[in-house]
Amino acid sequence: MSQSVIRMTYRIETSGDVAALATKIASDQSTGTFVPTPGETPELKARVGARVVEVRKLESVPTPSFPETNPSRGGPYWRGEADIEFPLEAVGTDLAALMTIAISGVFSIKGLSGIRIVDMKLPPEYAQAHPGPQFGIAGSRALTGVKERPIIGTIVKPSLGLRPHETAEMVRDLAAADVDFIKDDEKLMSPAYSSLADRVKAIMPILLDREQKTGKKVMYAFGISHADPEVMQRNHDIVADAGGNAAVVNINSIGFGGFSFLRKRSRLVLHAHRNGWDILTRHPGLGLDFRVYQQFWRLLGVDQFQINGIGAKYWEPDDSFVRSFHALQAPLFSPSDRPLPVSGSGQWGGQAPETYAQTGRTQDLLYLCGGGVVSHPGGPASGVRAVRQAWEAAVAGIPLEIYARDHHELAQSIAKFGKVKKNA
Amino acid sequence: MSQSVIRMTYRIETSGDVAALATKIASDQSTGTFVPTPGETPELKARVGARVVEVRKLESVPTPSFPETNPSRGGPYWRGEADIEFPLEAVGTDLAALMTIAISGVFSIKGLSGIRIVDMKLPPEYAQAHPGPQFGIAGSRALTGVKERPIIGTIVKPSLGLRPHETAEMVRDLAAADVDFIKDDEKLMSPAYSSLADRVKAIMPILLDREQKTGKKVMYAFGISHADPEVMQRNHDIVADAGGNAAVVNINSIGFGGFSFLRKRSRLVLHAHRNGWDILTRHPGLGLDFRVYQQFWRLLGVDQFQINGIGAKYWEPDDSFVRSFHALQAPLFSPSDRPLPVSGSGQWGGQAPETYAQTGRTQDLLYLCGGGVVSHPGGPASGVRAVRQAWEAAVAGIPLEIYARDHHELAQSIAKFGKVKKNA
Repeated sequence: MSQSVIRMTYRIETSGDVAALATKIASDQSTGTFVPTPGETPELKARVGARVVEVRKLESVPTPSFPETNPSRGGPYWRGEADIEFPLEAVGTDLAALMTIAISGVFSIKGLSGIRIVDMKLPPEYAQAHPGPQFGIAGSRALTGVKERPIIGTIVKPSLGLRPHETAEMVRDLAAADVDFIKDDEKLMSPAYSSLADRVKAIMPILLDREQKTGKKVMYAFGISHADPEVMQRNHDIVADAGGNAAVVNINSIGFGGFSFLRKRSRLVLHAHRNGWDILTRHPGLGLDFRVYQQFWRLLGVDQFQINGIGAKYWEPDDSFVRSFHALQAPLFSPSDRPLPVSGSGQWGGQAPETYAQTGRTQDLLYLCGGGVVSHPGGPASGVRAVRQAWEAAVAGIPLEIYARDHHELAQSIAKFGKVKKNA
Repeated sequence: MSQSVIRMTYRIETSGDVAALATKIASDQSTGTFVPTPGETPELKARVGARVVEVRKLESVPTPSFPETNPSRGGPYWRGEADIEFPLEAVGTDLAALMTIAISGVFSIKGLSGIRIVDMKLPPEYAQAHPGPQFGIAGSRALTGVKERPIIGTIVKPSLGLRPHETAEMVRDLAAADVDFIKDDEKLMSPAYSSLADRVKAIMPILLDREQKTGKKVMYAFGISHADPEVMQRNHDIVADAGGNAAVVNINSIGFGGFSFLRKRSRLVLHAHRNGWDILTRHPGLGLDFRVYQQFWRLLGVDQFQINGIGAKYWEPDDSFVRSFHALQAPLFSPSDRPLPVSGSGQWGGQAPETYAQTGRTQDLLYLCGGGVVSHPGGPASGVRAVRQAWEAAVAGIPLEIYARDHHELAQSIAKFGKVKKNA
């Protein structure tokens, strides 16, 4: 029986020799160091050493991704993609070990003018070792009661500064507008002016009261993140004990440790905000692709994953968002390990047709609008209606301007927010 | 009384207007979004809004740090440093909130061709809210018994692949050589062929036995990292219960949550390996400076902090290492919040004179040599002696080649490892 392996793909850029650097990565990240050491025997290397499987040449570039410390060398900068296999024996299934050995270490290697990790294929042992999403797509639909359309969500704005009773007033309006999902802005956790406990106390009765009257429970994701996992867990319990069913978690700010601790005890849908991710991916020659990064967080158990959207207010090009969406749609090991993709950032409904077209005409997503709902000229309730109308039009294949002729709220949105500008 | 503030300094790069982007950062990272929202009142902004205090112009650059998505715009790329103040009221003292609001979010902002966070000044409320180092410099000295010289350490090599009894054999040699500190390579945690429990069982009796005979206890830092804080805590307990006194923690792979959980219960000196840090700092126009990053981990309680060294095997320029060293030497709020700086990576003693000269002639450091000790022609024991000799020479102001005339092991090291090449 062949041994299980972890296969990584690195896009290497250098003024030197790409294949030599691939070999160096395999050595440095397993058994080697800057000089040969007596114990690095052929037996040991065969057992735990990483191995370059293939190097594919790519076009060179004239400018280095990391500016050269020695510019006299100059370009061109050769590029290639190297597949490197790590024996599972050397790494194990712990995600901190995987991150340390196969990813983090490579960014320190001398002689690279750029390196980006573009793929990772994990063996099935990882499926058994990790919980994956507790709710995911099916759970998010069951809890919101939304069946054959996207779940429509909004974000309380302004992001910071509202006191709990002010947030509650806005939530009352939004719930009355029949929105499916509401969340705290990722920047709102538990500041003194709006402690999580006070916010939960102000908001949950409104949602529970409405549920009693209408049978529909709005999913509210409270910002529970905290650097201390036990404080975060207490925050989680405050929400769950008050009848809440979701939480916003700033995954990069709490790290694997914080998320892992929370997931084991979680009764809530965990809505991941990847704030900070951009520094790991924005430069195309450096960092890592979302298809690599998302695997860690899915294994750890993210239920809903924010990934920007078409024409986002942020830097991210539309095609990058679309690739991220498809990465989330593909099972890692089984369909149940798929979190619900969350399309947000500068969304107001205008992006619905393009989003629908580009994501394989799926309605399995949470479509999230902050300012696009809250700043609607007719108020948040009209904002929610406009977004629903935009999605109805998109799914029916009717251009928004046509559909807007007898859908007033959508017409108002179009007038206010204008044409969608694509992010190239 | 004036309100407490957090002051951040951002180095902004853009083909647009630096001051306008500073204003956008202050808005986006506090109360604003892509459109004005009804609740963003002057009262609310005064209370929790971030504020641009000063923008200082810097020289422009011809090449964008983030390659332009729209290259037709072209350069030059204007640069400036913006000081922005966040009211403590808006953020609080939680480090996940601080990271989310003041740091992570800015990397997503459109219109920037580069952004690097170069300084952070926290108000004294942070000192009270966080534990800081439990052992730090004084504790590391007390536990190793090393007084008026650098603590000399080594790393078991090869990094991966040795079975516990093989590691133990090497540790026996190193301890006999009177080394002060030994550590697992950061890539070694608890793989099947060398589980932490088995490694501790094989190594600790050797160190305890030697302590009984000589009175000197070698500090051994075991790799205890794990994505699950409770597994990591069990690893910690295995080490502590067996009489160990230190652990290697891969801080970026476990995150704030993992470290925070561990620190509360720790009985061990926590030796931080910042594997992965390079992707956050290697591009000089992007990411963050170590002086910002290290503040988080010092507040969380790192006792010993690895920061490369002069002529490191990695990419880092010497002056960057020196700045990092000085950052660790400066108290945040009190002298006891200073961890022990750890100089490592490609070290073998040859770098001692330059290290001593550049770090303010301090001997408060752990000087760490892996291959530089293990691959010494006379074996590890000779390697340790060579490193000690190099430091004696450095402190006495005697050139190494002169000192090597009657210090055989140092002469062997010089012959094997050659001249130190500075990293420019």
